[in-house]
Amino acid sequence: MASENTRPDLPPLKDLTIDNITENVHSINSRCEDARLKFLLETLVTHLHDFARETRLSVKEWETAIEFLVQVGKISSDVRHEFILLSDILGLSLLVDSIDHPKPPNSTEGTVLGPFHTLEAHDLASGDQISHDPDGEPLFVLCSIKDTQSRAISDVSVDVWETDSKGFYDVQYAERSGPDGRAVLKSNQDGIFYFKAIVPVPYPIPNDGPVGKLLGRLKRHPYRPSHMHFMFKKPGYDRLITALYLRGDPYENSDAVFGVKESLITTLGLVSDVKGLAEEYGLSPQTKLLKHDFVLITDQESDSLREDNAWKEARRREGLTVRDGLLVRKD
Amino acid sequence: MASENTRPDLPPLKDLTIDNITENVHSINSRCEDARLKFLLETLVTHLHDFARETRLSVKEWETAIEFLVQVGKISSDVRHEFILLSDILGLSLLVDSIDHPKPPNSTEGTVLGPFHTLEAHDLASGDQISHDPDGEPLFVLCSIKDTQSRAISDVSVDVWETDSKGFYDVQYAERSGPDGRAVLKSNQDGIFYFKAIVPVPYPIPNDGPVGKLLGRLKRHPYRPSHMHFMFKKPGYDRLITALYLRGDPYENSDAVFGVKESLITTLGLVSDVKGLAEEYGLSPQTKLLKHDFVLITDQESDSLREDNAWKEARRREGLTVRDGLLVRKD
Repeated sequence: MASENTRPDLPPLKDLTIDNITENVHSINSRCEDARLKFLLETLVTHLHDFARETRLSVKEWETAIEFLVQVGKISSDVRHEFILLSDILGLSLLVDSIDHPKPPNSTEGTVLGPFHTLEAHDLASGDQISHDPDGEPLFVLCSIKDTQSRAISDVSVDVWETDSKGFYDVQYAERSGPDGRAVLKSNQDGIFYFKAIVPVPYPIPNDGPVGKLLGRLKRHPYRPSHMHFMFKKPGYDRLITALYLRGDPYENSDAVFGVKESLITTLGLVSDVKGLAEEYGLSPQTKLLKHDFVLITDQESDSLREDNAWKEARRREGLTVRDGLLVRKD
Repeated sequence: MASENTRPDLPPLKDLTIDNITENVHSINSRCEDARLKFLLETLVTHLHDFARETRLSVKEWETAIEFLVQVGKISSDVRHEFILLSDILGLSLLVDSIDHPKPPNSTEGTVLGPFHTLEAHDLASGDQISHDPDGEPLFVLCSIKDTQSRAISDVSVDVWETDSKGFYDVQYAERSGPDGRAVLKSNQDGIFYFKAIVPVPYPIPNDGPVGKLLGRLKRHPYRPSHMHFMFKKPGYDRLITALYLRGDPYENSDAVFGVKESLITTLGLVSDVKGLAEEYGLSPQTKLLKHDFVLITDQESDSLREDNAWKEARRREGLTVRDGLLVRKD
């Protein structure tokens, strides 16, 4: 019976019961040579099995879940990220971002990426118009980027994206001539970037698919409060994915994807609020103004915080250690 | 700020942290009017979040997982059930079947359905040939179906399916003229059914897709030991999904999908072992013989056992009760 595919040191995988199957699955997965993958699978299988045991999941419910997951996969495409959306509405996306991108108190908090970031936005210069929706309410956006020591950071790549005035991103239109409502800008030597946009509006996440149907069954509304997305990238700095939300939005306290943070809520002003701004940028003084100062942390600050947190968790529990910044089981 | 979409009795969903996001997701899901769905979601979200917290999941790993799930969905079709396969190799399918179809000791145990059952098998009569593979080793299958009081059960619909001699199911061939290696039979008044088949062979589960790739990374082989699938259905009886395995198979102790149970392992004999069998069915005495007696339980026996088990779990934990046989939170 010797075969390269049998493993004499494993207990026979037979007569598996509700109680012994989990350790048997761990056992057969334990040949994995990637310590992190092994740890992820072990933890996943434990929770998956505990979920089934604690709910006493029925075969019919399992079938419904399988079919749901197939549908989520089927509707996914380069411009529709239904699995990200599922992760978003379950609070997983925000949680993973919080774990992996810890922020010290004096830096800008991150939030969910959402399913509408694309890689096709054009590079624009500060002052350019990113939205060409004639029905949008004009908005001037003026921001600075600093480090935790209040020094300006130049040459940061700034991805911004927002919906049109109807609450739709460009990619949600089947017929479109190219990207709109999005751009990639660069901060200048003073860490400043600015652009012309439109005032964000609340909008529903795509709810004509399986995730929308689930929200319906949970009696949850699909709305996100008005916001504008930002992603900041510069070598040496921890990539920051965040968004700014408008104070007073009706969905401020019930964001369908759990993205709102108090520190990211902003109140719009007018261009006339800032002396000389209208003249400097050739704007009407009555134009709405979004002004914000972002604070990025360095890779070093982020790595060290992340590693500290991983070690804290490793010390809290038996048998764990940290390798390459990631939790794994001790050999 | 009053809006039908805000909910004043919910805590504001803002400043969600690694520690408080789970209860906030529960809170927003708590409007769901379906008590069972609400309980399933609550348990799912808890485990999903605990998984991310306990592993300190990275954004890169989350992205890999999202992409993996999309691929599993994309490759799925009416004849390729990759999400079922994923559930199988994680031991979830066997677990859910064990929970939902509890069996008293004197009845036939169930096992995994697997991803190759179809609804297109032809109705055949006892004695018919279900496999037309000329390279297969002929096998005569002679079975009885009884209840737990040893009374024959007639008119049971018996779905059987097996691979060809190369280890492939009919649906794995892109070009095929129709179903083969599968049939739906009926037990006669003595609870007997019999048919001509081929001796099962071990085979790999489909490993050219994302699930196969995962098995590879886990250093697991994709083989299932030689077996033949059976599904029994008759109104009033608990549907039994099971399989018979051949003793001595090299993969007997390491089934990729955790389906083997000692009580389902059988030793093949010869038609000549049973006096008069060759003459009665016009067979060569040297033909291999698979003989098995199945025992079905009634819906009533199954429901009562399932409900007992659900109540046991409800009593073991705080705040739970059983409704329509399923665990839910008390109102």
